[in-house]
Amino acid sequence: MSKGVKLGVIGAGSAVFSLGLVRDLCCSKDLYGSTITLMDIDEQRLDSIFKLSTRYVDELRVDLKFEKTTSRETALKEADFVINTALHGGHGNYETQRATGDKHGYYRGAPGRNYNQLRFMLSVARDMERICPDAWLIQSSNPVFDGCTLMTRETDIKVVGLCHGHHGYRFIADVLGLDLAHVECQAVGFNHIIYMTHFLYKGEDAYPLIDEWIETKSEEYWRTHKLGRAAQVSPAAVHQYKMVGLYPIGDTPRRGGWWYHIDLKTKKRWYGEIGGFDSEIGWAQYLEGLIKRVDHIMKVANDRSVLVTEEFPPRRGEEQHLGIIEALTFNKEGKFQVNIPNKGLIEDIPDDVVVEVPAIVNKTGIQGIRVGKLPKNLLLQVLWPRIHEMERELELSLSSDKRLFLRMLLDDNRTRSLEQAKAALEEILSLPFNREMAKNMMESAAARAH
Amino acid sequence: MSKGVKLGVIGAGSAVFSLGLVRDLCCSKDLYGSTITLMDIDEQRLDSIFKLSTRYVDELRVDLKFEKTTSRETALKEADFVINTALHGGHGNYETQRATGDKHGYYRGAPGRNYNQLRFMLSVARDMERICPDAWLIQSSNPVFDGCTLMTRETDIKVVGLCHGHHGYRFIADVLGLDLAHVECQAVGFNHIIYMTHFLYKGEDAYPLIDEWIETKSEEYWRTHKLGRAAQVSPAAVHQYKMVGLYPIGDTPRRGGWWYHIDLKTKKRWYGEIGGFDSEIGWAQYLEGLIKRVDHIMKVANDRSVLVTEEFPPRRGEEQHLGIIEALTFNKEGKFQVNIPNKGLIEDIPDDVVVEVPAIVNKTGIQGIRVGKLPKNLLLQVLWPRIHEMERELELSLSSDKRLFLRMLLDDNRTRSLEQAKAALEEILSLPFNREMAKNMMESAAARAH
Repeated sequence: MSKGVKLGVIGAGSAVFSLGLVRDLCCSKDLYGSTITLMDIDEQRLDSIFKLSTRYVDELRVDLKFEKTTSRETALKEADFVINTALHGGHGNYETQRATGDKHGYYRGAPGRNYNQLRFMLSVARDMERICPDAWLIQSSNPVFDGCTLMTRETDIKVVGLCHGHHGYRFIADVLGLDLAHVECQAVGFNHIIYMTHFLYKGEDAYPLIDEWIETKSEEYWRTHKLGRAAQVSPAAVHQYKMVGLYPIGDTPRRGGWWYHIDLKTKKRWYGEIGGFDSEIGWAQYLEGLIKRVDHIMKVANDRSVLVTEEFPPRRGEEQHLGIIEALTFNKEGKFQVNIPNKGLIEDIPDDVVVEVPAIVNKTGIQGIRVGKLPKNLLLQVLWPRIHEMERELELSLSSDKRLFLRMLLDDNRTRSLEQAKAALEEILSLPFNREMAKNMMESAAARAH
Repeated sequence: MSKGVKLGVIGAGSAVFSLGLVRDLCCSKDLYGSTITLMDIDEQRLDSIFKLSTRYVDELRVDLKFEKTTSRETALKEADFVINTALHGGHGNYETQRATGDKHGYYRGAPGRNYNQLRFMLSVARDMERICPDAWLIQSSNPVFDGCTLMTRETDIKVVGLCHGHHGYRFIADVLGLDLAHVECQAVGFNHIIYMTHFLYKGEDAYPLIDEWIETKSEEYWRTHKLGRAAQVSPAAVHQYKMVGLYPIGDTPRRGGWWYHIDLKTKKRWYGEIGGFDSEIGWAQYLEGLIKRVDHIMKVANDRSVLVTEEFPPRRGEEQHLGIIEALTFNKEGKFQVNIPNKGLIEDIPDDVVVEVPAIVNKTGIQGIRVGKLPKNLLLQVLWPRIHEMERELELSLSSDKRLFLRMLLDDNRTRSLEQAKAALEEILSLPFNREMAKNMMESAAARAH
């Protein structure tokens, strides 16, 4: 029966993601017959990924058709699914803006870095409304929480945001010495801010095991283990757990509160020997690793003398993208961790805010599991403030209101004076890739003056 | 027809307020025949105020009956109206807690000072539910916004919060040289955070007059005028207006943002030569003035050789309390500035948050005027963050959750480390008048541990 699907990939030049997708696709028989249109504005990258992909399926003699295009319109045409994995401007722009923040007293970057990315995400969704209004958008690139909320509010397309942070509970299970086969976890909230509402071992509440580990073993663990970039059982994670009463999962403990991130010394205290993922050390390691992997993929892609399937053997990874596509298309029902509009799933969170929850996915669609009440303390300390931050980010991307950007800087704990915030703002707006933002803000101010 | 009303005054020892009330009452013929039960826990103060009041009505031969009691129950019994003007613990406790904050790096006080006052307000409302469930509570003491929201959520009694900050527009009119008789203003928001949605002169939009004054005259005004404790046309007020797009009224510009309040020098820059109402200079002046006025009232109250009506001639002041009582009781319809649950009056503000709006008051009750939409920028910069702050204050007063108190301190811009917040918290909890809070927090933590 299956003739596969038509899948458009925006930002297919993301080599690691695209390689993973190709390997997953080759392991998904139901999707054979599909056409995958790889789209990127970086032609060279796109070309390499396209070569890699076609060679991959050729070597395996798998019935998957790859196309490449630099035109978004072409990628969206007749698409059943669109994956957006693109980071507008790439890591380079983010690093430049981060350095500008650093210069003005915002260690590791000032707030308000998502303007371009959010507008880009919305423009993709708007194009989908026009070109493939019935297609599902699978949003992979960050910020998933803000972006999915923006797109589901402003357009009528079907959006689901995906991440893999919820697997973080496995790290905890491992540290506790539990057999993963008997561990169950439910973690909910917003993308990158999820907390375990349930943690079961052999059907019994396993939270007491965490408490016991913290009480009796954590100090020794921290003395004897390097934490690297993993924050899952860091002192920061434990402290956040104590503050809100539920354990933070995946990317959640990486942030948590400004007081873990004052400087490298503070970061080391809370995240271990390199100060965690987001310190200058951890992040440089991450980017270096990324560049190495991309270089490797590119080298293989452009070296016809090797078998790509030998370099990167086919295996179905842990990304949920294809599982959800299969469930929606072929009614292969499954439970997935998704980011979808709340609509009552979590109490005291507005309906039109995108939440991360488990969901049942099948031909009828993506049906979120109703979580109900979360502790008021968690709402007050973490979730409601994050909603507020998101609302500001969204409005900034829509209104280009410079006063709001200034307020976002002013409300950052690291701001010491109005002058500091203003100076940072002006330099951020002077960055070449923020030219459009600067222009929009001038126009928005001029319109207000009339 | 009128036999007056039964009015209970909680905190009647507030000499300035009570004297004003007596003078107002004597000028309100419809209320003759009323019984006013003055209640305070400070017997000496209460006694003086009682003497003053009875002498006042005796001198004028006005038919008003005063009673005094230290029992809240007695004051509430058979009351038609209850005015709560009490500040739990008085200014002394606030000043002590403020000094503790100062010591830990929180210039002019740390957050979280309303715990005792909010619980006190709620206990009055709960007593009213039991003793005089049909009476109206007129809430006069601060925090009106947080307190009225708490009481209307947690009890079924009728609550209206009153303030006089909305008169602030007159100060602006005066500075602009406008004839007050032709000025109309609508200012809405939350108590102490209200903004002019309408400012009319002779029926025309007068906002351009403000803009012109700012553009051409403000600098000279600030050079040539002492601002004293009035913030209404201060540089801070103008800056806030520029930030949010509507002009802040009354007490609103006194706060506005941490960056106006870094230290006395910053305060002077934004609020003039003494740093405004809330600097150490302005506040000391205010307290001194208050003490002088109270001393004067007390002296007169206890000196039978003078005529109190000569010292304090009868006049109807600007407080709205009696006007509202008359409107509700005798259907003397009027438009008042009130604090009542939103219930759709302002869009994008939850129904159960108390807003400050104009209202029509008559025998049918207090009917708020629907304001509709406010600028998104105002919501995002000011009103939503204030809701969030209020939600934390209320939950803290209800749950006694120490973790939440710590978070409130951590989210203060002046906090530089987790240790600073913890140290401040512990010393605040060690203050004698916070003993109950400290105990409740220990019990709440113990309950969580089980």
